[in-house]
Amino acid sequence: MSIDALVAPLAGRQARPAGTVVRAGGVEFGGPAVVVAAGPCAVEDEDQLLSAARAVKAAGARVLRGGAYKPRTSPYSFQGLKTDGLKLLALARAETGLPVVTEVMDARLLDHVMACADILQVGSRNMQNFTLLEEVGRCRVPVLLKRGMSATLAEYLLAAEHVMKHGNGQVILCERGIRTFEPSTRNTLDLGAVPMLKRHTHLPVIVDPSHGTGVAWMVPAMACAAVAAGADGLLIEVHGQPSRALSDGGQALTFDEFAGTMGRIAAVASAVGRGLA
Amino acid sequence: MSIDALVAPLAGRQARPAGTVVRAGGVEFGGPAVVVAAGPCAVEDEDQLLSAARAVKAAGARVLRGGAYKPRTSPYSFQGLKTDGLKLLALARAETGLPVVTEVMDARLLDHVMACADILQVGSRNMQNFTLLEEVGRCRVPVLLKRGMSATLAEYLLAAEHVMKHGNGQVILCERGIRTFEPSTRNTLDLGAVPMLKRHTHLPVIVDPSHGTGVAWMVPAMACAAVAAGADGLLIEVHGQPSRALSDGGQALTFDEFAGTMGRIAAVASAVGRGLA
Amino acid sequence: MSIDALVAPLAGRQARPAGTVVRAGGVEFGGPAVVVAAGPCAVEDEDQLLSAARAVKAAGARVLRGGAYKPRTSPYSFQGLKTDGLKLLALARAETGLPVVTEVMDARLLDHVMACADILQVGSRNMQNFTLLEEVGRCRVPVLLKRGMSATLAEYLLAAEHVMKHGNGQVILCERGIRTFEPSTRNTLDLGAVPMLKRHTHLPVIVDPSHGTGVAWMVPAMACAAVAAGADGLLIEVHGQPSRALSDGGQALTFDEFAGTMGRIAAVASAVGRGLA
Amino acid sequence: MSIDALVAPLAGRQARPAGTVVRAGGVEFGGPAVVVAAGPCAVEDEDQLLSAARAVKAAGARVLRGGAYKPRTSPYSFQGLKTDGLKLLALARAETGLPVVTEVMDARLLDHVMACADILQVGSRNMQNFTLLEEVGRCRVPVLLKRGMSATLAEYLLAAEHVMKHGNGQVILCERGIRTFEPSTRNTLDLGAVPMLKRHTHLPVIVDPSHGTGVAWMVPAMACAAVAAGADGLLIEVHGQPSRALSDGGQALTFDEFAGTMGRIAAVASAVGRGLA
Repeated sequence: MSIDALVAPLAGRQARPAGTVVRAGGVEFGGPAVVVAAGPCAVEDEDQLLSAARAVKAAGARVLRGGAYKPRTSPYSFQGLKTDGLKLLALARAETGLPVVTEVMDARLLDHVMACADILQVGSRNMQNFTLLEEVGRCRVPVLLKRGMSATLAEYLLAAEHVMKHGNGQVILCERGIRTFEPSTRNTLDLGAVPMLKRHTHLPVIVDPSHGTGVAWMVPAMACAAVAAGADGLLIEVHGQPSRALSDGGQALTFDEFAGTMGRIAAVASAVGRGLA
Repeated sequence: MSIDALVAPLAGRQARPAGTVVRAGGVEFGGPAVVVAAGPCAVEDEDQLLSAARAVKAAGARVLRGGAYKPRTSPYSFQGLKTDGLKLLALARAETGLPVVTEVMDARLLDHVMACADILQVGSRNMQNFTLLEEVGRCRVPVLLKRGMSATLAEYLLAAEHVMKHGNGQVILCERGIRTFEPSTRNTLDLGAVPMLKRHTHLPVIVDPSHGTGVAWMVPAMACAAVAAGADGLLIEVHGQPSRALSDGGQALTFDEFAGTMGRIAAVASAVGRGLA
Repeated sequence: MSIDALVAPLAGRQARPAGTVVRAGGVEFGGPAVVVAAGPCAVEDEDQLLSAARAVKAAGARVLRGGAYKPRTSPYSFQGLKTDGLKLLALARAETGLPVVTEVMDARLLDHVMACADILQVGSRNMQNFTLLEEVGRCRVPVLLKRGMSATLAEYLLAAEHVMKHGNGQVILCERGIRTFEPSTRNTLDLGAVPMLKRHTHLPVIVDPSHGTGVAWMVPAMACAAVAAGADGLLIEVHGQPSRALSDGGQALTFDEFAGTMGRIAAVASAVGRGLA
Repeated sequence: MSIDALVAPLAGRQARPAGTVVRAGGVEFGGPAVVVAAGPCAVEDEDQLLSAARAVKAAGARVLRGGAYKPRTSPYSFQGLKTDGLKLLALARAETGLPVVTEVMDARLLDHVMACADILQVGSRNMQNFTLLEEVGRCRVPVLLKRGMSATLAEYLLAAEHVMKHGNGQVILCERGIRTFEPSTRNTLDLGAVPMLKRHTHLPVIVDPSHGTGVAWMVPAMACAAVAAGADGLLIEVHGQPSRALSDGGQALTFDEFAGTMGRIAAVASAVGRGLA
C-alpha cells in the first residue's frame, strides 16, 4: 500500500493539520520543544534505577524510561523484574518527579502497569498485536507505539489508527530502526521516516537511537541527526555501568556520556529552531 | 545471533534427533507423508465455508483452515466473524471430519477457540507476542506458529522455544514469506528456510505459498517447490469465488485449481520419496 | 516500477509468447528439458578443472562452468588465473566436448574470452554495468545474465533489454539469491522469481543454488525445489576437494554429492513433466 | 563479514588515524568544513547547466555536479548528452570556477572524462565493477565512490581498497540510500553509515540525500540530519525547473529551495562545531 493512498481518518495529517500535542506528567510531545526520555533498558534494582533517574534528570531528561516487563528473543534471557520493577518505577517517579514510560506486553496487566506509568509503551514486536492495540486504545493514558522492525510507514500509521479508533488519540510514534541486510549495526535507523511520518500524520514522532543502532558510541551522533531531521523527541538508554547491564548493555550510555550528549542535542535543536523541553 | 550458536534445548534438533511428529485429529505432521491443509483465508458464511471444506477434502486435503479472528492491517477491513466463525468451523469439522486449524490472537479467548479448533495458529504478526506464546505453551493442543515477516531463523526457533518452555511440545513451524525489497509479490517465499530449519530443529516444517507469494497463479509452482525442498506440509488458501473473497482473494485458488494443484503436489512428493497424507 | 507496467518490447513475454530457446554447443536452454551446468567456482589448475569436468559430465551435466576472471570483494583474495584459466577451459572443452560458460568482467577482453567460451556470463555485480551489457549485446554468443543481489525483477528484465537492444537476443536469466536480513545463508534464494520471470519474459530462466545459499548441504534440496518451481536449468558448483578450494569452497559439492544430486534432480524433473537434457 | 574483522590496510582507519583530506580544485573534503556539491542530475543543455551552476555557486555550493553519461535502468530512458555533456561541464567550470564531479561508466572513456572533470564519480551500480575500480585506481584524480544499493559497509570499504591498491588514495565515500522493504521513498538513507564509516576508515564521507530519498521535499531535513550525523559533505540535486527534468526531477530542488536549504545546513554545521566550506 502506498502511504499517499493511506486511509487513516484519525491518524492522518488532514484530521489535525496543526499537529497533536500529547501531554504526560507536565511534558509535551509534539510541541515546539524537543523532549528527551532516558533511563535504563530494564529496571534491575533500586540503586540502579534511582541513580539513573537522578542522573538523567540532572542532565535534562524530562521523562524516565525503564522496562519492568521485557520482551526477550530467548526465554532464557532476563525477563524483567515485573511487579517489583513497576514498584521501583513508581518510587523513582515519586523521588524525581519525572513521568515514567514503560512497556506493557499483556492486555490483562494494563491496570497494573497504568498504576505506575504515565505513558504506556507498545513495543516493536507488538506493533500489530491488535488485541493489545485495542486495549490501550480504550485507556485514557498516552501510548508510545514503536515501529515494527519491518513495518512500512503505511502499516505503522494504520497501527496507530487501530489505537485511535478505540478512543485514545494520545499516541506518540517512535522510529527505532528497521531490519535490513547491513550487519554492522543491530538495526538500520531510518531517519527519513521522521519527515515522512510528520507529513502524513499529526501525531508526535520521536526516535530511539539506542535500539536503532545497538551501538553506544553511535548514539550521540544519531540523536543529533534525529533532531536535525525533525524529531519531536528522543528515547535514550542510560545505565550506570553498561558492561554490567542485564539487557542491551552494548547500546547504553554512561551518565557522563549522556550528559555530554544532551549538550550536543541542545545545540542542534537550537540550530533547527527548537529548544529542549 | 548465528543459528549455529543457537541455544534452544527444547526446540533444537539435538533434543530429538529422529524428529517430532505432531498429531491433530488423526493427521500426522512430520511423519513420512506430506500433509495439506486448505480452506478459505477467512470464514465468511456457512455456504462459503462448507462448500470449501467439502471441495478441499474431496481433493485430498487432510486439514481445514479458516480464520474466524482476522488480524488486519487496517481497522476498517473485515475483522472476521469471530464467535460465529468459530461455530461455522465446528460445523464444517463435524460434517467433513477434517481437523481445523484457526488463528488465535488473544490469550483471553484461548478456551473459546480451543473448543472449535484442533490446531491453534499463532500468526506472523504475533510470532514474538510472548504473552500469547506463553499461554499457548500452557495448552495441550498443537500450535501452528508462523514465521514473523522479518524474523531470522534463529529468532523463529527461539519463539518456538518460548512455547515449548511452558510445556507444549506440539509445535508446527510454517514459512510464509519474508519481507524484502522485491515489489512484484506480497512477500518473498524463503524456501531455503525449509532445509535450514529441518537441520536445526526436530519440529515439523510446513510452507504457506498463498501468503508467501500473494499471487494465486504462483501457488501451484511454489507448493511443488516447497515439497521438493523438504516441507512436511502445505497451507493453501482456497475459495469458491476468489474475486468475491472478503480478504486476500488475490491469492486464493478456486476449487478446480486446488484439485489440479494436488495432483502436481502428489507427483513431486512421490519424486522425493514421500507421499501425500 | 511494477513488473506489470514493464516496458520491455524485446525481453517481454509478448515478443515471443512461445518462449525462446537459447542454443550453445548443442545444448538447448528453454526447451522441454532441464539443463545442468556444473563445475568449479574458479579454475585453479589443470588437474582440478579436468577432473571436475570429467566428473560432472559423467554425472549428466551438459555444460561446464568455471571462472577464469573472478570478481572478489577483497582485492587480496584470489582473482582467478585469467588467461591461463581460459586456456584450461578450452582444454577441458576439447577433452570432454562440454560447452563452457565463464564470466567476462571487462568489455576489453571480450574477444579473448569468447575464444574459449560458448556462453558469456555477466555476474551479479555487473548486472547494471551498462557498458558491459552493451558490448555483450553486440556479440553473437549467448549471454548468461545473473540477477543483481538487490535487483527487482523489473530491473532485471530491463538489464536483459539493454543486451537485446544491441542485437543479441540469446540471453539466459539466472536467479542466484538476493540480499535479505537473514544471516544463516549467504543469500536468500528467491524461487518465486522463476514463475514470475517465466510469465513476464520469453527468455530461459535457470537457478544457481550454490551462490543462492552458500551452503553445500542445502544445494541438493534447493536444486530440486528450483526444478519444481519451473526452472529451465541449474548452475551448480562442484569441486574435487571443496575444503581446499581457492574460492567459495563452502558451497561446492564433491563429485559424489553431485552425482547423487543429479539423480534427485532427474526424479523431480520427471515429476513436473520434464526430463534432464 | 564483520566490519570489525575487516582487512583493509589502505582504507582502514589505522592507516591514517588523523583522517585523509581529499583536495579537488581548491576544495577540501574531509577537513573541518562541510562541502556541498550541487547541480542537476543530468546535463541537458547549456542554459540548464549554466543557470544551475550559477545558482548553486551563489548559494554557497563549492562543487558542481552533473551527469554526462547516465546509467539508466531502462535502455529507452535518456542516456545523457555524453561528449556534448562533458563540453558543457567544462564550460560551466570555466565560467563559475567550480570544480566538477561527473560519473564515468566506461574505463575506455577515462581520459576523455578526466579532461573535463575534477572528481571522477563511480556510481552505485558500479561499486563492484572491479575493472572500473582498477582503472580509476590508476588515475591521479580524486574518486567519488558511491555505496552500492545493497552493499554492506565492509564490502564498501573493500571497494575503496580496490581503488587504493592500484595507487589512487584520493577516494571520497558517499552514502546514497540503500534498498529496503519501505516503499514510500526511492531508497532508505542510512545515516548510521556515516559514523560507522568514519570510525573504520580515514576517508572523507559525504551523503546524497537526493538519491537517498528520491523526494525533493525531504532533502532539506535529511541534508541537515546528515551533517548532524557527521558527514563531511553533501551531494544535492538542483534543477531550474524540476518538473521538466529529463531524469530524477522528483528529487531535485529548485534554486530557491536550494538557497534556503543551504542556510539550514549552515546552522546545523555550526551547531556540530563545523562550518560550510
